[in-house]
Amino acid sequence: MQIRNIFKKLSLWLGGIFVASLFTAVLVGLVRYSWISLADPVVLEAQHQAKLDYLEKVPSAQENAPNIVIVFFDDLGWGDLSSYGNQLIQTPNIDRIAEGGLRMTDFYSASPVCTPSRAALLTGRYPPRTMTDQHVFFPDKSVIGTTRKMMGLANELPKEEIAISEVLKKAGYRTGLIGKWHLGDREGYRPNDFGFDYFFGVQYSNDMYPLHLFENNEIVEEDLRQGNFLSSERDEFNPLPGKGVDQSQLTEKYTDEAIQFIEQSGDTPFLLYLAHSFPHVPHYASSKFAGNSAAGTYGDVVEDLDRSTGRLMKALGELNLDRETLFIITSDNGADYNGNPGPIRGRKGEILEGGQRVPMIIHWPGHVSQGQVSDELAMGTDIFPTLLSITGIEPPKDRIIDGKDLSSMWTGAAPSPHDYLYYFPTLGALPGAIRDKQFKLLANTGDTGRDREHLTRVIDNESHDVQNLHPDALKRLTASLEQMRQEVKNNPRGWLTTN
Amino acid sequence: MQIRNIFKKLSLWLGGIFVASLFTAVLVGLVRYSWISLADPVVLEAQHQAKLDYLEKVPSAQENAPNIVIVFFDDLGWGDLSSYGNQLIQTPNIDRIAEGGLRMTDFYSASPVCTPSRAALLTGRYPPRTMTDQHVFFPDKSVIGTTRKMMGLANELPKEEIAISEVLKKAGYRTGLIGKWHLGDREGYRPNDFGFDYFFGVQYSNDMYPLHLFENNEIVEEDLRQGNFLSSERDEFNPLPGKGVDQSQLTEKYTDEAIQFIEQSGDTPFLLYLAHSFPHVPHYASSKFAGNSAAGTYGDVVEDLDRSTGRLMKALGELNLDRETLFIITSDNGADYNGNPGPIRGRKGEILEGGQRVPMIIHWPGHVSQGQVSDELAMGTDIFPTLLSITGIEPPKDRIIDGKDLSSMWTGAAPSPHDYLYYFPTLGALPGAIRDKQFKLLANTGDTGRDREHLTRVIDNESHDVQNLHPDALKRLTASLEQMRQEVKNNPRGWLTTN
Repeated sequence: MQIRNIFKKLSLWLGGIFVASLFTAVLVGLVRYSWISLADPVVLEAQHQAKLDYLEKVPSAQENAPNIVIVFFDDLGWGDLSSYGNQLIQTPNIDRIAEGGLRMTDFYSASPVCTPSRAALLTGRYPPRTMTDQHVFFPDKSVIGTTRKMMGLANELPKEEIAISEVLKKAGYRTGLIGKWHLGDREGYRPNDFGFDYFFGVQYSNDMYPLHLFENNEIVEEDLRQGNFLSSERDEFNPLPGKGVDQSQLTEKYTDEAIQFIEQSGDTPFLLYLAHSFPHVPHYASSKFAGNSAAGTYGDVVEDLDRSTGRLMKALGELNLDRETLFIITSDNGADYNGNPGPIRGRKGEILEGGQRVPMIIHWPGHVSQGQVSDELAMGTDIFPTLLSITGIEPPKDRIIDGKDLSSMWTGAAPSPHDYLYYFPTLGALPGAIRDKQFKLLANTGDTGRDREHLTRVIDNESHDVQNLHPDALKRLTASLEQMRQEVKNNPRGWLTTN
Repeated sequence: MQIRNIFKKLSLWLGGIFVASLFTAVLVGLVRYSWISLADPVVLEAQHQAKLDYLEKVPSAQENAPNIVIVFFDDLGWGDLSSYGNQLIQTPNIDRIAEGGLRMTDFYSASPVCTPSRAALLTGRYPPRTMTDQHVFFPDKSVIGTTRKMMGLANELPKEEIAISEVLKKAGYRTGLIGKWHLGDREGYRPNDFGFDYFFGVQYSNDMYPLHLFENNEIVEEDLRQGNFLSSERDEFNPLPGKGVDQSQLTEKYTDEAIQFIEQSGDTPFLLYLAHSFPHVPHYASSKFAGNSAAGTYGDVVEDLDRSTGRLMKALGELNLDRETLFIITSDNGADYNGNPGPIRGRKGEILEGGQRVPMIIHWPGHVSQGQVSDELAMGTDIFPTLLSITGIEPPKDRIIDGKDLSSMWTGAAPSPHDYLYYFPTLGALPGAIRDKQFKLLANTGDTGRDREHLTRVIDNESHDVQNLHPDALKRLTASLEQMRQEVKNNPRGWLTTN
């Protein structure tokens, strides 16, 4: 009887806690969820005002400032182009552009995933500055999107961030984004709200649902597939049923739109940000060329992108604009499962080299000498200050711009302005790795029982830990990494006092 | 009141189930645990008798059968030797041996982890045949070891398995294992119980505890560190406190013992299985040479192994035995975290190439022509039948020997006897991948949302899926993999009826 009573009491007690917790959690959750999915993102008013003040004072671009084309691939790995050593994929057009300019071997995306890398490209700032340090943005009001907000995470690029498109628009450029945005699809946070005169493309990755095709804020092709708020299409082998946007036409459509945008710009200088949806999964090759590449569908998709890049360059040539155009080709992060990182360790999502080291080609006849290959260090964050430098515009002073001006490296073969590069992980505000010319330090390997710092020679594929042999390098890189961690901890958004 | 009652009943019910399950599980568990940790492993009597009958009939090795040395490294990656392209580690002795014989570029360990690979080396059989298809063996009566048995898994090489050491001993060879065993440390299941006349070394990996040093069944150096049954030392940076075996002396001790074993063999032909503990973690380099390698401690450890291999070959030469000795160098699986897999995908534990493709060097002057490099397919399972062929002994007929005779490949540059190689995963009885000369098929990528088959060209680092381009290859490899899966499902241990 005694034992029976103890058993009964223990059961009541444990079960009670469980049931009560469940009720409370569901109730609190529902209220919070509804409230958050409706509420507008917080805007930091002071910083937003500072942005408006800065933009107000942006001068016209200096004379002879070039047109700017940024061809931004999605998930293209370091080893996915024939000029970067791929043995199966042929990319003759891109290779020819590389031969006509500068090919960088040690260029890094600012993140091993999509959204933070794009935010960094447009703002020159590391992921925590732009609140993109926790994976990627999800469709507005979707379960994951709203859950992100319940966790206190952003799901749009904050309004107070300054995008290169906004600056160059003020400087007299015609600005266009053709392709993928992925910095928030909520009304008021779309490409046209961040300085793009023209937008044609999709709001996020091509495996997300619904994948409507937009022209500015209008849906021009509706995704009618039978999906729901949790649907995604991670694999072309199991497509969602129903009629969606024909992804096999995306690369060509983007290219047509890009060429049209250039043609319509007339004598106005332009910024064309051509952010391709591919080679991100699912993989749909142009039906005209499918089955041609020795690398299968993935190769077809990349060879489509190569043809697109060739068409774009040809169009510039026919308009006699090729010598007046700074043409940049790069990627938002390293190779995904089906991509080729080349002979470097790791892939998309990891701060190992394969996650962030990406192709980078700069073509600007008369300014960037042809036939150059450089192993100088640089990162996606550098594009913003470099473009400002090239157009003669002062960067904003109320915030940290993490990138550095690469213009003299590009045009004068100057050494890299970076002593160090920092690697920001997919999840987490603080950098997890650092490299200089010779060494890379990973703060934690994540390896069972050996989750500690790992110092390697860059030539060694991040394999052998050499910390016992190079204690000075270990100390130096540890200190620099720690300094950056502290800086980000103390001032994650990187606001500066301007008085 | 109504709700209160429902709440109370629900709580009582849920909590009751929880508490009752807990009590039962603990009780049943304790009884089962004690029983199993004491019980001897099951022996299949019929197969054990067949083994004894087979061994009884083993003839003397044919005249001029060579001495056999197998240098077996632990976790040495494909790219860890300078002859395999390592840029930081220098292995001049091994490289010289390779130049004097045959270096294989497409040789595979039989498993991406330790125990199954060693079982396959000694028996010529795939992991499920030897009940080593679920990770590795743990110390006898340890929590993990006993838990394995509670789960129905083996923790010793089954007594009915036939090891090459047993066969060659019967054929007149003097047999020695110097180094790591890792096929069960329970009494009755140790090296001397499987045909080794002499054993000097450790019972399992150098990160396991307690790591006593044995000579035959006697402990000659006791591990006195302050550890318990759950201790392990996965990292030389955090060693267990107290005096253990001095791991920095292991490679040299093994080498001394190996040379002594050869010297003491006199005119008797010998099988020397030198199974080094390194470069498995933790990494302890010989204090005489520590700090020399450009690859840090890992490099020091590998360069120790290279010096050891050089000393061994030198000793053979001084005894005029080098031309009468078949000298084999290979590894039990691919590179671990700190090792270098070379430009191939994946590492230890994975059935990607980096997990199983390992160095393989064969040196046998007058029989194996010098200066050869071969990309023919072969696997660790092939050693058993090849050694039987070279010594003129028929293999057993009551069981499947998965390996194939490589002797004419080694001595006559014949093509590989394998149309296909099968990859058995760390956990699971069924093969998860297959390759032929040109293609590799992975049955499941394990990739989120795209966990499906992945067909790649071997030259492409397992990157681009080419199944749309090569439907015939997909069909052929899928069918062969499925056939092997069925064969293993129907007859996991591979017993044959002999009448």
